[in-house]
Amino acid sequence: MKSTTCFAFKGFSEQQTQSLAAIAREAASSKGRILFQEGRPARLLYCLKKGEIELLTKVDETVELPITLLRSEGQFFGTSALIEPHVYSLSARCKTDCVFYTINQEDLTTLGRSDPDLGFIIMTHLAKTYLDRLTETRQELKIHFKTIFKAMRF
Amino acid sequence: MKSTTCFAFKGFSEQQTQSLAAIAREAASSKGRILFQEGRPARLLYCLKKGEIELLTKVDETVELPITLLRSEGQFFGTSALIEPHVYSLSARCKTDCVFYTINQEDLTTLGRSDPDLGFIIMTHLAKTYLDRLTETRQELKIHFKTIFKAMRF
Repeated sequence: MKSTTCFAFKGFSEQQTQSLAAIAREAASSKGRILFQEGRPARLLYCLKKGEIELLTKVDETVELPITLLRSEGQFFGTSALIEPHVYSLSARCKTDCVFYTINQEDLTTLGRSDPDLGFIIMTHLAKTYLDRLTETRQELKIHFKTIFKAMRF
Repeated sequence: MKSTTCFAFKGFSEQQTQSLAAIAREAASSKGRILFQEGRPARLLYCLKKGEIELLTKVDETVELPITLLRSEGQFFGTSALIEPHVYSLSARCKTDCVFYTINQEDLTTLGRSDPDLGFIIMTHLAKTYLDRLTETRQELKIHFKTIFKAMRF
């Protein structure tokens, strides 16, 4: 499998896909390893090549809330690296042994400046991802409210 | 007040601000009016000039959940118009008499194609807005989980 496959976003030209692959570094981590932690400075964007990544948030010191499980090649995570103030909004843990690519946020910014069209496609993709997650999270919140309303009615 | 004030995003050049103002239409609505409804096709992006706008979602046929109250000039809403599949994710209601600008999604797409740098700035701003809202919504969800965990412990 070519490394460029991971970065083949809908809308990217072949040249743009290759530019992105050129600044990516392949890495591997074993099952259970934490790749980054919520609240810490976000300097690396990740793209999954192989394995499963769990994204989670801490409810308190002892309780974790799983947010999503990534298991498809080409899924991006650690995307807060692209957004000011560049702080991870979730933690990422390898659910299995994993292979992934990392892209340095500064390298990507430099690339985006030289090719605003590429930056536009990435940010559109990112905005859509966040909107989808926001809709899902609101849906969960609605379920909680419904439970509370039912409890109050009876 | 010049109409361009509303569109003066951080990062826009004066030319870009004027291009955006040129495709905007000013409109007014009275208190209580619904500007758009959740789940309906999203063709217009809105920018608040004066008044207060309530964004809300339906929990069920009888219960509404308020999401946020916009009251600052220059705040955008109806932003799902910029994201496929172009469907409003919330409803918007005028909390007071309001004045606002609307921008047709197709006009903005045409402008973005001719100036990818402008498109990049808008999408970056949008991704940041969604990430902020996502973080807030997850925070609310955590509060609900904490309440449930406490109830289970005692």
